Amino acid sequence: MKKHNFYAGPSILSQYTIKNTAEAVLDFAGTGLSILEISHRSKEFQAVIDEASALVKELLEIPEGYHVLFLGGGASMQFCMVPFNLLAKKAAYLDTGTWSSKAIKEAKLFGEVDVVASSKDKNYTYIPKGYTVPDDVDYFHITTNNTIYGTEMRFDPDVKARLVADMSSDIFSRPIDVSKYDIIYAGAQKNLAPAGVTIAIVREAALGKVARAIPTMLNYQTHIDKGSMFNTPPCLPIYSALQTLRYYKDLGGIKELERRDIEKAARLYEAIDESKIFVGTTEKDARSIMNVCFVMRPEYAELEKDFITFATERGIVGIKGHRSVGGFRASIYNAMPIESVEVLITAMKDFEYKI
Amino acid sequence: MKKHNFYAGPSILSQYTIKNTAEAVLDFAGTGLSILEISHRSKEFQAVIDEASALVKELLEIPEGYHVLFLGGGASMQFCMVPFNLLAKKAAYLDTGTWSSKAIKEAKLFGEVDVVASSKDKNYTYIPKGYTVPDDVDYFHITTNNTIYGTEMRFDPDVKARLVADMSSDIFSRPIDVSKYDIIYAGAQKNLAPAGVTIAIVREAALGKVARAIPTMLNYQTHIDKGSMFNTPPCLPIYSALQTLRYYKDLGGIKELERRDIEKAARLYEAIDESKIFVGTTEKDARSIMNVCFVMRPEYAELEKDFITFATERGIVGIKGHRSVGGFRASIYNAMPIESVEVLITAMKDFEYKI
Repeated sequence: MKKHNFYAGPSILSQYTIKNTAEAVLDFAGTGLSILEISHRSKEFQAVIDEASALVKELLEIPEGYHVLFLGGGASMQFCMVPFNLLAKKAAYLDTGTWSSKAIKEAKLFGEVDVVASSKDKNYTYIPKGYTVPDDVDYFHITTNNTIYGTEMRFDPDVKARLVADMSSDIFSRPIDVSKYDIIYAGAQKNLAPAGVTIAIVREAALGKVARAIPTMLNYQTHIDKGSMFNTPPCLPIYSALQTLRYYKDLGGIKELERRDIEKAARLYEAIDESKIFVGTTEKDARSIMNVCFVMRPEYAELEKDFITFATERGIVGIKGHRSVGGFRASIYNAMPIESVEVLITAMKDFEYKI
Repeated sequence: MKKHNFYAGPSILSQYTIKNTAEAVLDFAGTGLSILEISHRSKEFQAVIDEASALVKELLEIPEGYHVLFLGGGASMQFCMVPFNLLAKKAAYLDTGTWSSKAIKEAKLFGEVDVVASSKDKNYTYIPKGYTVPDDVDYFHITTNNTIYGTEMRFDPDVKARLVADMSSDIFSRPIDVSKYDIIYAGAQKNLAPAGVTIAIVREAALGKVARAIPTMLNYQTHIDKGSMFNTPPCLPIYSALQTLRYYKDLGGIKELERRDIEKAARLYEAIDESKIFVGTTEKDARSIMNVCFVMRPEYAELEKDFITFATERGIVGIKGHRSVGGFRASIYNAMPIESVEVLITAMKDFEYKI
């Protein structure tokens, strides 16, 4: 039975990425060796990281002055790397969910943190508006997509302070004005690659402003100076990332990905809004096009387990909602085909009809 | 042409590991999904990390009180994690090469560092002896195998202080008395898995003795408390590690691996010692059984490039020595079959005969 992969992350990757990665595990670039066992200093792997970096720059139209880094450790490591590198006295953070909160917790180890707004009062079901970011902060940090709560900031905020964004779960789903940001980081395991690599897009001019000593591995400058090869990088995840980036370029780039993502999300939200038993959990203007969160209306709440079983029988995997929200979460990242979204919608309608 | 992979790392893995990983990239554990795109919270992946952890404990006969962690970021990240977690006032380090030196550099950011001995005076060609480790240090750090210089400490030192070891390039090549150590860490890309995961074996009782605030991701306790799943772990490298661990167990465990490793190294060193043109670079009693470093005798030095070409034509890959030593380095990790070592020895003899 064909599986429809709605996991929140690690999550669905394109068949192009999967197939090419499997081939490279057996024979990488005609070397007769596996991508698992080839030196990162080989010319064949250098070509991989060079092309991957160039494609990120091309697809996101990254201006001069920025470096694309491929780092190990996960986006959670960035929660401390950002303040290590940028926080001299005070930083501003927008609290839009679990990941923001974790980033705030780490920043507090390094200096004063001004949480300019939070949507915690309503279980993170909306994106705060009307807040003010002080001009004197070292940077303002946002989380553009909140995987757990299904909300998203689909715009690049205008602030005077340096802007830092965790785009782990929506990078490559819309054009970004990179020039507004000083650091963008993203764990790869949603829209790019298997778990194990994090991309960081860093404006070099933003670095070197703090007085503290930074451990070598936690200093962005280290990785800029060595082209992400200060230490052995996670080679296979980077190879898979390259496949995804090639696939994105062939599809037509970020605008085409955005068009598809909006269409998929619109269909699913429409089905939720038309349903008598399902209901969305977020404010409509904050809806994520990556993670669609919904629950059973209270009078049907006891049927949630039944729907999971019903969906599982149709090959639908990974739609159980996070415990913080309950219900269901359909993660429909770039690689998710609209056909799988239709399978889910049909299952929702059939289940509703059946009860 | 069959390739003989002598890369220093990432380096040769068993065909069992490579084949099973390739299969899991296409279909993981019968889920119908790729290991690249499956949730780390799925029961199928939980089973992987549980079995991998149990096998590390079994193979290394790890006593109670220790935890096996699978971390991202590389062994280079451990250079700062160790002092972050253990260095209150002063630590002792043994300087046996590039990796030791890098570890020492990071430790100095956190406290006083007593370099108890160094073999830098002779380009790290020996392992210092007769040094004293002060009893009052927070820990004593050693690098058991020096990939670049080809030296190895094939014993577990007796010291009163807590003992920390970087075993990145020789773990699983000999039985270890784990009870002598408080932390053992190893980047996986030599004897275990593709690059992207580092194993850390941590005695929990050694933690919590420093006053400083430790960023969450850099705190071993975080990863102990969450069973290496505080954040998304590098799933594919962990899956590959599990395959290697199963392979090791099937072969007969660590003692059998050590027997094979000693035999392979003995044959290669014997060929070097018998040669009129090649010569080993290290003191004989410090020779690594993982990385065999040798050069051309001075009168033949101009032939080094020719030998690389000669060897390449026989499918031998990755024997160029590190620039700090020059000449050649044959890395003959656990997965290296003795047949490939014989191919190298034959190439050396044929080249010598030819000139």
